[in-house]
Amino acid sequence: MKPKSRIVNIPVYQPGKPLEEVKRELGLSEVIKLASNENPYGSAPSVQEAIAKELTQLHIYPDGGAVELTAQLGAHLGVEPNQIIFGCGSDEIIALITRAFLEPGDETIMADQTFSVYKSNADIEGALVHEVPLKDGVHDLEGMMAQVNGRTKIIWVCNPNNPTGTIVSHEELIGFLEQVPSSVMVVLDEAYYEYVTDAAYPQSLKLLEKYTNVVILRTFSKIYGLAALRIGYGVGHADVIKLINQVREPFNTSRIGQAAARQALADQHFVQECHDKNKEGIQYLTAEFDRLGLHYFPSQTNFIMVDVKHQALEIFQSMLRRGVIVRAGHQKYPTYIRVTVGTARENEIFIRALEESMQEQSTTV
Amino acid sequence: MKPKSRIVNIPVYQPGKPLEEVKRELGLSEVIKLASNENPYGSAPSVQEAIAKELTQLHIYPDGGAVELTAQLGAHLGVEPNQIIFGCGSDEIIALITRAFLEPGDETIMADQTFSVYKSNADIEGALVHEVPLKDGVHDLEGMMAQVNGRTKIIWVCNPNNPTGTIVSHEELIGFLEQVPSSVMVVLDEAYYEYVTDAAYPQSLKLLEKYTNVVILRTFSKIYGLAALRIGYGVGHADVIKLINQVREPFNTSRIGQAAARQALADQHFVQECHDKNKEGIQYLTAEFDRLGLHYFPSQTNFIMVDVKHQALEIFQSMLRRGVIVRAGHQKYPTYIRVTVGTARENEIFIRALEESMQEQSTTV
Repeated sequence: MKPKSRIVNIPVYQPGKPLEEVKRELGLSEVIKLASNENPYGSAPSVQEAIAKELTQLHIYPDGGAVELTAQLGAHLGVEPNQIIFGCGSDEIIALITRAFLEPGDETIMADQTFSVYKSNADIEGALVHEVPLKDGVHDLEGMMAQVNGRTKIIWVCNPNNPTGTIVSHEELIGFLEQVPSSVMVVLDEAYYEYVTDAAYPQSLKLLEKYTNVVILRTFSKIYGLAALRIGYGVGHADVIKLINQVREPFNTSRIGQAAARQALADQHFVQECHDKNKEGIQYLTAEFDRLGLHYFPSQTNFIMVDVKHQALEIFQSMLRRGVIVRAGHQKYPTYIRVTVGTARENEIFIRALEESMQEQSTTV
Repeated sequence: MKPKSRIVNIPVYQPGKPLEEVKRELGLSEVIKLASNENPYGSAPSVQEAIAKELTQLHIYPDGGAVELTAQLGAHLGVEPNQIIFGCGSDEIIALITRAFLEPGDETIMADQTFSVYKSNADIEGALVHEVPLKDGVHDLEGMMAQVNGRTKIIWVCNPNNPTGTIVSHEELIGFLEQVPSSVMVVLDEAYYEYVTDAAYPQSLKLLEKYTNVVILRTFSKIYGLAALRIGYGVGHADVIKLINQVREPFNTSRIGQAAARQALADQHFVQECHDKNKEGIQYLTAEFDRLGLHYFPSQTNFIMVDVKHQALEIFQSMLRRGVIVRAGHQKYPTYIRVTVGTARENEIFIRALEESMQEQSTTV
């Protein structure tokens, strides 16, 4: 049996190490995972009640169109229901967009580095991927624009960018959109939207009317704390959403996921609280990095990328032995780790482990 | 923005009418939905407890590899973990198989009619679809074999078939597999596997060793009663599963879905009970159809397709007004409805509504 030759060697995504596995392997009683940008405060308590109400309906298919959730989200965002599509995480929306739009010979443009799922899906569809290096950890929109040609189908702007946490501003984005031909889709991945504190951050929903080639991705996996339930969404012009919907499986989100998202959306107080605590966490961590003389990218998210001045994979291992899991292995940033902002206590433990690990690496070299 | 031209007009799946919608529209206090082959006995009660234990972990990503569930299922089925892949329902496995294997110019063979998701996904990938008419509601394996040529990539055998409920036997299947070139994948969709009572039904897992081109699909949506949670799976040769896995999104099943499936799998008593009650339901319904002189296909599932001797869409509407939702609109069977086997009480209400509706249609013609 012959698969598409191009899919055979696509690298498979490496998730952060599961906590239980690390505990077992290292015989540690407490392990702190700051590797997957999960919300350390969980999800709104009322979500659990909302799920409990659905437990007698497990045998009933979910509403494939997520009608109720779509209406609620549309009202929340100020867009029409037909401008919204839900997916099994925003990951799935990325997959659907590529499956609907990209063909072999098409071209697509993204940052290097950025969220890996854009490239893996473009590779699956056989599109040519132009990766444009970040500038100081920020999307180089000019450099990306320079790659646009008649075969360009999609440009991916991860904003804030994962893994660097940086943003492009409203003004910069408008300048870019003015140049991009309307035949090219611009995907704004705003998975960390709710964490942003910078007033210069794009008000992207307001751009949809003028720039009908924009599709915005957001998720319930991050600040809403529902990563376990796999529910994200795309927002765009109704005609574009309709096309993406053409390749969606009929029941791609779960009944529990929909119910949880409805309740999570209703509890904006929880979101605000998490936003505020995360901001304090960022302040603490950056102050500590300054004290230690470590470079980091200015983060508008719930994670920070910091230069640990040693091979990041060595620091990763050293911190792991101390029961702290972070992310390393970013090809373009071999001496940087990406750490999720935890609770105040977790952040302190992280800093202690980081200092010890850097000390250890310095003495072993 | 130009999508793949072939995806623009693919018909979007029409799900069964949601119960609440019908109640609202018609002002009915009780509505019985026998349209989506859901388990009328729900799911095992212990599943709810298993889910409750996960509710403090909603913010944590699921195990992308579903390691625990895979090990448990592997032991249950007697296959290795690397022979299993999980999906957002077995629907997603169908999508993944086509995305990994089908290219424009490839050909694929399926029954007409059968589960619509094979064709929609083959259409998305631009493969040429050969639809081979059923013979008396049964897959015409000989006719399907006659369509095989050097461009054939995948043959779909829905067994039992949806919507007719019929099976091909172990002997028939072996005869077929002996002829199919080993370069052609044969997908056996066994979504209703656990409902089958006929001893001639294939023991498909035993075929995997000899026929490495076979992939089996099963699901937790039907007899396990977990349709709400979207969890199905594929089983095949490790090399084939590995290729399908190349196009899987990293977190395609939920934490809740995995926990529920683990518990549901452990409770085989519930499965046996549902199997037995379904068998009684089939006996009741077929006896009633015989009494009414209606033709039906011999069903090995939790649904039956029956000739109502009028335009099925008219009968559908007439039954809807009586608060009973069934399925109609099967292109090849315009006078047949497909009804899910309900509880004993639901089956009686269905028969009464059917008799009244047929009576009504006879007098209005």
